Amino acid sequence: MRIVFTTYLPKEGFAGLEEHELVIPHAPYFSTEELQERIADADILVSTFDYAVPAEILARGARLRLVANFGVGFNNIDVAYCKAHGILVTNTPHTVTEPTAEHCFALMHTLAHRTAELDRKLRQKDPSIVFGVMNNLGVSLYGKQLGIIGMGRIGTALARRALACGMKVAYHNRHKNVIHFSNGDERICEGSPKGEQIIYMSLDELLATSDYVSLNLPYTPEVHHLINRETLKKMKPTAFLINTARGAHVDEAALAEALRTGVIAGAALDVYEHEPHISEELLGLDNVVLSPHVGTGTIDGRLDMCHEVETNILHLIAGEHNLMNLV
Amino acid sequence: MRIVFTTYLPKEGFAGLEEHELVIPHAPYFSTEELQERIADADILVSTFDYAVPAEILARGARLRLVANFGVGFNNIDVAYCKAHGILVTNTPHTVTEPTAEHCFALMHTLAHRTAELDRKLRQKDPSIVFGVMNNLGVSLYGKQLGIIGMGRIGTALARRALACGMKVAYHNRHKNVIHFSNGDERICEGSPKGEQIIYMSLDELLATSDYVSLNLPYTPEVHHLINRETLKKMKPTAFLINTARGAHVDEAALAEALRTGVIAGAALDVYEHEPHISEELLGLDNVVLSPHVGTGTIDGRLDMCHEVETNILHLIAGEHNLMNLV
Repeated sequence: MRIVFTTYLPKEGFAGLEEHELVIPHAPYFSTEELQERIADADILVSTFDYAVPAEILARGARLRLVANFGVGFNNIDVAYCKAHGILVTNTPHTVTEPTAEHCFALMHTLAHRTAELDRKLRQKDPSIVFGVMNNLGVSLYGKQLGIIGMGRIGTALARRALACGMKVAYHNRHKNVIHFSNGDERICEGSPKGEQIIYMSLDELLATSDYVSLNLPYTPEVHHLINRETLKKMKPTAFLINTARGAHVDEAALAEALRTGVIAGAALDVYEHEPHISEELLGLDNVVLSPHVGTGTIDGRLDMCHEVETNILHLIAGEHNLMNLV
Repeated sequence: MRIVFTTYLPKEGFAGLEEHELVIPHAPYFSTEELQERIADADILVSTFDYAVPAEILARGARLRLVANFGVGFNNIDVAYCKAHGILVTNTPHTVTEPTAEHCFALMHTLAHRTAELDRKLRQKDPSIVFGVMNNLGVSLYGKQLGIIGMGRIGTALARRALACGMKVAYHNRHKNVIHFSNGDERICEGSPKGEQIIYMSLDELLATSDYVSLNLPYTPEVHHLINRETLKKMKPTAFLINTARGAHVDEAALAEALRTGVIAGAALDVYEHEPHISEELLGLDNVVLSPHVGTGTIDGRLDMCHEVETNILHLIAGEHNLMNLV
């Protein structure tokens, strides 16, 4: 098999494919021209969540049987084209879950406890940073409500963490759903019975009552600018927004204005509307935490994702009809 | 009752004491001279963990019945003098527990996922920060071992969080102990039975096997420089140290050298050996996260602590013989 990668990924993540031909860029990415040339005789394309694979590229892959995407979101791929042309598409939902929830939780803690801001100002010897009992304080997570928009695998992993930290959890989803816990517990989250720790809410109710709002839903055109000038106004002025999903969920200009004018209290972002560009206004605000779309955020997470891509490919090679992780 | 404060604390935290005379500094702290003058006719002294109350000061308080310390640690107070002179001492262990564990957890996430470093470098437009799948990665907590030195209330609250994040937890303590969980579970942590998620280890074993080492023990002279050049060498080169307990637990010069030379991978510190001084070497390292002894770290936590101090005082005024939180 000839397996072409859009993006540099470490070869040690694909040790099980050593009898096959792996075409991996040395630079972070193949240019469009380089990829179009190499895809011509590829059996499998390994793409990454940040690399657009439109029909124009796919059309060059006459032998293509599988696009094995590295990442849980697959809005970078023209899936409709693939379906129409018998090309399978897989993603890596299992390995992405825990480290992505962890990065989301890391951003939430960093924002609430001001750890990035305080560390930065200590290094700058900012005169506003004076040691003292009532100085430099943040806001607790403990006892507060986390509203999760998009309660899939990552949302559930985030909810488990939040409950252990003494938070209440509300969620909004297309469907009310069952939450599976690592200890084997299951809870059907229907409505809002008193005393239930995880409750389903309408989007408006979730926005109006949550102290922390986390976006954990996939991108589709229907949720473009889900967070905009109007929905930001529905949030509490003390509330924080965390976006580790996709940049286009949020109207970034409206968010920057809301952060500057106190419509909401703060935001932590791993993704941006015009990536890799981050608006100057966001870069200058103290009530913001920014990370450069690290997603899972960790080297361990990345290697695990490589292994999940590899497993998807090995299943195809083994001739399995029902691939795991088909999208 | 005349209640003198060493340190500015917000009056709204002491609404239940409004019939009494509260003497609170406007500036963050009373000077030693100001305090010595005011303590002369005080019935109660409210001190804070960062304000030294030695015998010389206490000796001026002829009417003193209670030193109500704001904080869980009380090594700032000459407790032996108090005991010898019939002065009661209380602390605030209950309200400190969750927010302090939370700040510890926030620092751990900030360090592991590099959220402070990445945010700082994005703002500085550091050319090393390029968006990319294999760039800017940190290290997972998930699947790793957290070693907790000092398994009291805060250590236990930290362990609960770590387990929910998929970590294994080891601890070292003067005594093997019972871990109480918020869901009512209790586990006696004796030895290291296979499959047990929280295991007792000797200090050496904990240092040699943990990916994250967190100091959560009170300060006593016996544990001065518990972390020093020799014990740092026992840690893994990939390990992280988190200190939210007391600065004197750590030989700061030895730590800075270990961080610079790769003896360990990183550190997150809320407390310092020569507070409020932070060594220049630490301030220049990228593998360090620093916060200015915020302790509980949050305004919510501080107000709750005020209420716990207030409750301790009200119990004394009510004439109770067995005060809660006597140390």
